[in-house]
Amino acid sequence: MEPINVSEYEALARERIEAGVWAFYQGGSDDEVTLRANRSAFERIRLRPRVLVDVSSIDMGTTMLGTPVRMPIAVAPSASHAAAHPEGELATAHGAMVAGALMIASTVSNYPLEEIANAARAAGGYTGEAPLWFQLYMYEDTSLTVDLVQRAQAAGYRAIVLTVDLPRLGNREWDKRHNKLNPGPPQGYRAGNFKTGTDGDGSPFNQRLTWKTVDWLRGITPLPIVLKGILTAEDAALAVQHGVAGIVVSNHGGRQLDGVPATIEALPEVTAAVEQAGGKCEVYLDGGVRRGTDVLKALALGARAVLVGRPILWGLAVNGSAGVTSVLEILRSELELDMALAGRPTVASIDRTLVRLP
Amino acid sequence: MEPINVSEYEALARERIEAGVWAFYQGGSDDEVTLRANRSAFERIRLRPRVLVDVSSIDMGTTMLGTPVRMPIAVAPSASHAAAHPEGELATAHGAMVAGALMIASTVSNYPLEEIANAARAAGGYTGEAPLWFQLYMYEDTSLTVDLVQRAQAAGYRAIVLTVDLPRLGNREWDKRHNKLNPGPPQGYRAGNFKTGTDGDGSPFNQRLTWKTVDWLRGITPLPIVLKGILTAEDAALAVQHGVAGIVVSNHGGRQLDGVPATIEALPEVTAAVEQAGGKCEVYLDGGVRRGTDVLKALALGARAVLVGRPILWGLAVNGSAGVTSVLEILRSELELDMALAGRPTVASIDRTLVRLP
Amino acid sequence: MEPINVSEYEALARERIEAGVWAFYQGGSDDEVTLRANRSAFERIRLRPRVLVDVSSIDMGTTMLGTPVRMPIAVAPSASHAAAHPEGELATAHGAMVAGALMIASTVSNYPLEEIANAARAAGGYTGEAPLWFQLYMYEDTSLTVDLVQRAQAAGYRAIVLTVDLPRLGNREWDKRHNKLNPGPPQGYRAGNFKTGTDGDGSPFNQRLTWKTVDWLRGITPLPIVLKGILTAEDAALAVQHGVAGIVVSNHGGRQLDGVPATIEALPEVTAAVEQAGGKCEVYLDGGVRRGTDVLKALALGARAVLVGRPILWGLAVNGSAGVTSVLEILRSELELDMALAGRPTVASIDRTLVRLP
Amino acid sequence: MEPINVSEYEALARERIEAGVWAFYQGGSDDEVTLRANRSAFERIRLRPRVLVDVSSIDMGTTMLGTPVRMPIAVAPSASHAAAHPEGELATAHGAMVAGALMIASTVSNYPLEEIANAARAAGGYTGEAPLWFQLYMYEDTSLTVDLVQRAQAAGYRAIVLTVDLPRLGNREWDKRHNKLNPGPPQGYRAGNFKTGTDGDGSPFNQRLTWKTVDWLRGITPLPIVLKGILTAEDAALAVQHGVAGIVVSNHGGRQLDGVPATIEALPEVTAAVEQAGGKCEVYLDGGVRRGTDVLKALALGARAVLVGRPILWGLAVNGSAGVTSVLEILRSELELDMALAGRPTVASIDRTLVRLP
Repeated sequence: MEPINVSEYEALARERIEAGVWAFYQGGSDDEVTLRANRSAFERIRLRPRVLVDVSSIDMGTTMLGTPVRMPIAVAPSASHAAAHPEGELATAHGAMVAGALMIASTVSNYPLEEIANAARAAGGYTGEAPLWFQLYMYEDTSLTVDLVQRAQAAGYRAIVLTVDLPRLGNREWDKRHNKLNPGPPQGYRAGNFKTGTDGDGSPFNQRLTWKTVDWLRGITPLPIVLKGILTAEDAALAVQHGVAGIVVSNHGGRQLDGVPATIEALPEVTAAVEQAGGKCEVYLDGGVRRGTDVLKALALGARAVLVGRPILWGLAVNGSAGVTSVLEILRSELELDMALAGRPTVASIDRTLVRLP
Repeated sequence: MEPINVSEYEALARERIEAGVWAFYQGGSDDEVTLRANRSAFERIRLRPRVLVDVSSIDMGTTMLGTPVRMPIAVAPSASHAAAHPEGELATAHGAMVAGALMIASTVSNYPLEEIANAARAAGGYTGEAPLWFQLYMYEDTSLTVDLVQRAQAAGYRAIVLTVDLPRLGNREWDKRHNKLNPGPPQGYRAGNFKTGTDGDGSPFNQRLTWKTVDWLRGITPLPIVLKGILTAEDAALAVQHGVAGIVVSNHGGRQLDGVPATIEALPEVTAAVEQAGGKCEVYLDGGVRRGTDVLKALALGARAVLVGRPILWGLAVNGSAGVTSVLEILRSELELDMALAGRPTVASIDRTLVRLP
Repeated sequence: MEPINVSEYEALARERIEAGVWAFYQGGSDDEVTLRANRSAFERIRLRPRVLVDVSSIDMGTTMLGTPVRMPIAVAPSASHAAAHPEGELATAHGAMVAGALMIASTVSNYPLEEIANAARAAGGYTGEAPLWFQLYMYEDTSLTVDLVQRAQAAGYRAIVLTVDLPRLGNREWDKRHNKLNPGPPQGYRAGNFKTGTDGDGSPFNQRLTWKTVDWLRGITPLPIVLKGILTAEDAALAVQHGVAGIVVSNHGGRQLDGVPATIEALPEVTAAVEQAGGKCEVYLDGGVRRGTDVLKALALGARAVLVGRPILWGLAVNGSAGVTSVLEILRSELELDMALAGRPTVASIDRTLVRLP
Repeated sequence: MEPINVSEYEALARERIEAGVWAFYQGGSDDEVTLRANRSAFERIRLRPRVLVDVSSIDMGTTMLGTPVRMPIAVAPSASHAAAHPEGELATAHGAMVAGALMIASTVSNYPLEEIANAARAAGGYTGEAPLWFQLYMYEDTSLTVDLVQRAQAAGYRAIVLTVDLPRLGNREWDKRHNKLNPGPPQGYRAGNFKTGTDGDGSPFNQRLTWKTVDWLRGITPLPIVLKGILTAEDAALAVQHGVAGIVVSNHGGRQLDGVPATIEALPEVTAAVEQAGGKCEVYLDGGVRRGTDVLKALALGARAVLVGRPILWGLAVNGSAGVTSVLEILRSELELDMALAGRPTVASIDRTLVRLP
């Protein structure tokens, strides 16, 4: 039967995804305190619905850095979609465009970014460019970064999303255990954006990124820069100072430093800092979004949109491109209903009074 | 054996009620966060009992919009009582009147409102009208509303309870799952108040209700208007401004927007707003009332009475009209004992000092 | 093997006590929210131990209304000890005196108060009177009260402990269920203080007790009056005004109004109110005391001593008089060790700085 | 397979350690409220990571009372290592030195302190003295203390860590139960520092320790004095006044007074008091440290280093000296990764802004 919510997609995906990939997708770091907090923190926030508002028409449309989108729900960047489905990121892009959602393609996709962009344009029937952003990992070899940014720009990506919370890989013990039992590289894996098929063509992650790197990145591309992985007011203020266009409040799905706040817990201090710094910066959130009410809570606390990671992979594994569309449609229709029931018929009407923090 | 509390009625009812109906009765929306909160929030509130008060005589009598009632516990409106017992709302009305409790009949009853009123009058032996209110759903076809209100007024109902939290049906997944397995309309179902036997004679819910609708409704009937489904101070203040006679603090039994507060959590801000706005409005509460102490807590926080929903259906399923009376008598006798043990022998003596919030 | 803590006595007692009696002893009222809170509230309080204090000698001695006792732990009044052990309250008194603890005998003991006093005197080898108080239930027939008080005074009881939280019996569902299965009076039961062997010789509880009753009681006996069952600052202040010598902060072991605070939660407001009213009133606590650290916490929050109820019955059931002594000795030796580890070698050195409330 | 974290060492150790020893190692006192709190309190603290900091080089080096150490993680004193592994403290010292961690040897070691010091020097290849401190229990026979301190000094120990929270042994019920089943002294046990092979050569613990004892101890040795077992601001201030060089915030692994705070809960008040008193005192913490993030949280709240107890014994039991090194290396490499992910590349950069208390 057709899944009726995101959790049902998770259950179905578990049956279809190979154990090592499942460990990679699902696991958090250390004791997974943050992974669990990402969900439980949403549950502790209360919604304050208004009544007797005309909700006969709900408009979920918004923009993300100027790009119109059908819903304030986008596809988070994640690695290796081909492990979930042979068509990999091409299917994800197809599915996202059909749903009308923006997608952030990952540096470590299995398909080259150009092919993903082509798939997106074809699926969405876009006359201009598709709503695609490019997530950037920086390796020690700087020329790789220059190359990736130029390729993304040429392929029509509309923003660069620099991940700033992964100078090293977090301590993901599910992966460690699986890899001990199954040594060697995963079969058939290929980093689509690199000549050798290996992440960064073998160059390790750059652990020397600083705010100067951000300035440098702004200098090599006219595309707006979004920083992914900020959790504090201090860094949010710095982001605004450094002319960043957007921030993703993210803890990398609970996969990097364990013990950091749930993203919905960190969101208020980030949006407050951005506002205090002049506010010329959009704020997004990922981490634990599984329900339309989660989206509603994030928007009420100042997010412009949310990103969804694991659920997209579940949909992809269960039913390819159509599964991706279905997951997004489930979230979108939940959000539509939730906006109606909350008496907030437009995204603009969702404000801070909609929530009560614990 | 005779059940000794409301939970035992629930267990017995589960054995008697068909699975699809049980899903409909028991389920909440989404992840049922609010459904669970309705209970757990009551448990977190502490009672502060006074001693050495003469409690040899306990008086639970009060009025609801001027109608004297034997207890501050009324029957909440709920749909389709015939699914619990063939005599449906006729039995419920009979049972409520025998217990001396006010009943709010639902727009989507299986029996016509006139027959329910007749059953109530007969059972209660009332010389005037029985303590009955009529719950109103508004459909897109406005003439249906005018007709229902006029019929209710003619049949002796004493107030119109307009439901304001259901512009659309909440996301009730138990129902969805059951309905996927059992397609088609439930066998033998009939909307007793409509010619075609279908809700709203097929007209969909009106999603355009606003405060002007409330003004309009006041204009077409002299009956007092009660709004059911308010959870915020803002809407409570507007209700007073629009001349509403009563408010039911309700989250529709956790069946509409998931993540809204438990009703006992929302009650204080609603009663404070009503008081600040001049206070000419009675406040009621439904949601999770299963014990006499729950009633005590609601009254201490400013409710004039509470409404009981699912327990009434459990009593009805287990033993028809007598089961309804029994459930109400259990709550009433618990409340009587609790008032004695709390040193509050009258409803008027129950005040804010009786509770300590968490 | 000899039990090493109070919980082990509970486990052993369960095997020895008949199911209906166990239901009566163990059960709380309604959903047992308060019964559980009595334990969990102790666990949430933190102790702040001091170090480098000479603890080579620990003095647990104190007085209760002037009577010297070996430990600040007394036997709470409870009904029908013969259901735990054939020697009933005689064995309890014997065991308590051997341990050096004060005992409060109940109105509804199975043995007459005079025999209990004799047993106590004999066991304790007291030259004067034994450390015994008499707990008083008042029935509608006032002459019974006068008679009981005069007998208690004549028999050498040193204080009258008037229970004020039981105008009616709480809703104890374990009892109700057991009694439905086993109708009729419990076999061999006898109210030792009444001619007919029935509580109050059949006279029902007096539900008309007020503060005037307290004044009247003070007028008919020179013995100091203690009120048992106070949970609020308001009633504590009234108690001081009415010349009461002591207060027992009690929720009747979670058996009367469910949802009232744990006694350790209510203690601070009671001791504060007594202090504000001039402080000429000792405060005790019962409810959930199972460890020496519980005693320490109660004393730090202003209690002069604690009363222990169920554990005494467990000890009695397991090993008669010796079991009672053993339970008291376990608590006493735990308290002795705890005072040493907390750096508080005397009862007087236990103050408010020893605890941090949650 | 090689364990990947400290918990896996615990699981392996359980299989290797004899039940009575396991009870002694693992158990806490009374109901183990504090034992559990030691872990759960860490989990409730949130980390606030900074991004875009150069973390290509992480420096975990620090000093403890002037002694340079490779990591801010030291070996806590604990008794009877030979029960875990025949080489006992010699293996522990070897393993700690190889890892570059300071070790605190216990008075109740199975090997003499001189042999432990020799093992440490040999393993570490130290030209000067090894990073070793000596934990001191004081017995009633004062000459034992003078002797132990002089021997420790002569053997090259660099500080005396006086345990102040054990005037008596806590109520450890696992031990009591085991000992009842297995009476008599544990087979092969020997207190290595005493002539008779018995703790304190049979002299009982001194329960008369006071701040004057601390002054006296300072007078008999030039070594710096550290007090282990302080949990309050009051005692921290006194420690500074009495010229103590260091404080270990400790609850003896939840084995002494049950109900005291988790050490990470008590740490802030201790560091604040030390700072207020002039700050000439280093603060350490033990209790529940199982992850690199725990170390990070303790350092952020003002600890100079943490001590690790049970995990060392687990490593020792599983793999002798190499197991000790491995446990320390796991914690060290977790801390290194955590510092990188938190944007704190040096110990000095870890400050109060890194944490948010619950």
